[in-house]
Amino acid sequence: MRIALGLQYDGSTYSGWQTQSSGNTVQDELEKAISAFIGDQASKAHPISTITAGRTDAGVHALGQVVHFDSNVERDPFSWVRGINSFLPKSIIVNWAKEVSNEFSARFSAFERTYIYALHAGPCRAPLVHSRAGYLLLPPQKWFDVEAMQKSAQCLIGEHDFSAFRSSECQSKTPVKTLYSIDIISQEPWLYFRIRGNAFLHHMVRNLVGSFLQIGTGRQHPEWMDQLLLAKDRRLAAPTFMADGLYLAKIAYPEHFDIPEPCLANSWLPAQLTGA
Amino acid sequence: MRIALGLQYDGSTYSGWQTQSSGNTVQDELEKAISAFIGDQASKAHPISTITAGRTDAGVHALGQVVHFDSNVERDPFSWVRGINSFLPKSIIVNWAKEVSNEFSARFSAFERTYIYALHAGPCRAPLVHSRAGYLLLPPQKWFDVEAMQKSAQCLIGEHDFSAFRSSECQSKTPVKTLYSIDIISQEPWLYFRIRGNAFLHHMVRNLVGSFLQIGTGRQHPEWMDQLLLAKDRRLAAPTFMADGLYLAKIAYPEHFDIPEPCLANSWLPAQLTGA
Repeated sequence: MRIALGLQYDGSTYSGWQTQSSGNTVQDELEKAISAFIGDQASKAHPISTITAGRTDAGVHALGQVVHFDSNVERDPFSWVRGINSFLPKSIIVNWAKEVSNEFSARFSAFERTYIYALHAGPCRAPLVHSRAGYLLLPPQKWFDVEAMQKSAQCLIGEHDFSAFRSSECQSKTPVKTLYSIDIISQEPWLYFRIRGNAFLHHMVRNLVGSFLQIGTGRQHPEWMDQLLLAKDRRLAAPTFMADGLYLAKIAYPEHFDIPEPCLANSWLPAQLTGA
Repeated sequence: MRIALGLQYDGSTYSGWQTQSSGNTVQDELEKAISAFIGDQASKAHPISTITAGRTDAGVHALGQVVHFDSNVERDPFSWVRGINSFLPKSIIVNWAKEVSNEFSARFSAFERTYIYALHAGPCRAPLVHSRAGYLLLPPQKWFDVEAMQKSAQCLIGEHDFSAFRSSECQSKTPVKTLYSIDIISQEPWLYFRIRGNAFLHHMVRNLVGSFLQIGTGRQHPEWMDQLLLAKDRRLAAPTFMADGLYLAKIAYPEHFDIPEPCLANSWLPAQLTGA
């Protein structure tokens, strides 16, 4: 049978989601924990292999990651949650488990992804969020031109060729993606970006955030974003901004799969973002 | 001259504030950074030794720690901040520096200390706050009896012998301390305690939090707190609750020293607690 899991993790100590020969990935830890829970015999007979909705990069966090795997072992949903969690390190948690039909794919059934970027800015770093929020040095009394960033975001909404914000290592078949919304929320000394789209190119959110900050700090005009988009040239946009503040917040699936909502309130992000 | 510093740190990887022969303390890191900033010659001529307002334990964090030290080196305040910070790890930051009179002592001039305890509770741990919030396992749909805890807090306000909540290793001259206020703020799945007093015994906040949670989960009646206080017997109160959620939030000094306010907004705590 097929099991879907909802996951949260602190990505700061991992080399990203996807299994690597060098180990130290979230996928490695999760598959080890599932195998340990179902036992040696069952996991040898049918090795556990997880498929994910979003292969997060090194240092990127997840609040609403979804994965699926197939197994011959039967357990009730809460038993999967407790059992797998008992074998996971503190930096990873399973929030829910659900038996799903074989048509469900955590990756291919997803039609919408939401990322949140949390930025702390000011004259001093904030130790209590280090590695869990991005940081930009701003002089005392300085803040971003939030309106300029919001204005510049408008040209990005809809279906576009996002080559300007695509990493050279991106494996996506097409640079054309659709963004549904970009919310930029300012709560000094915090700045949050919430970006909703059908899918994202490699480094796309971090490249967008870097470019927004060029506009927010007055180094570029709001029209610059439109110029970048049209030029489709990665070299013109801002450098990839640090992974620390990036959260895979939510994956949306067709309603008939009845996939649970992510536990956003379990993060440290403010209620305005988590809907709590 | 005497310099006061305002500090924040993530205590999760340190063996507490106070210098130990085994190293790995916040004081060690800070004194190393100050010495590196003022240079070999100056720090040999006049070794840096810091005095703190609150010697936090292993795993305990600070948002508004205050320390002072004496030095022959003259720098303007922001130069101290930037200079020391450039030698500190990401888990510690100096938020402000100020030249103070020699009558000022970070420890002995302090007349009030505020601690915050941040607790996450629910069926699953929250990886994004691991080591930065306490955790209590609660079944789905269960929450604390906040009113019972608030009721039980009333007997603690004022001057009392707090022996019931004192660690056996406590070095305080007297178990008699004065608590000015206890705020218990519930924002499911978060529970915050803010406790203001003239001074605190070793483990006092964590022992109080442990005992509050006995009442909040219905294991004890609100009157139990009063009984504990009167019995003055540490063995009757709850076990010391985990350090992870404890923050030294603020130290108050007589107004004429003009000590800056701590940058509480730099933490991940909600505006209700940080006054942002």
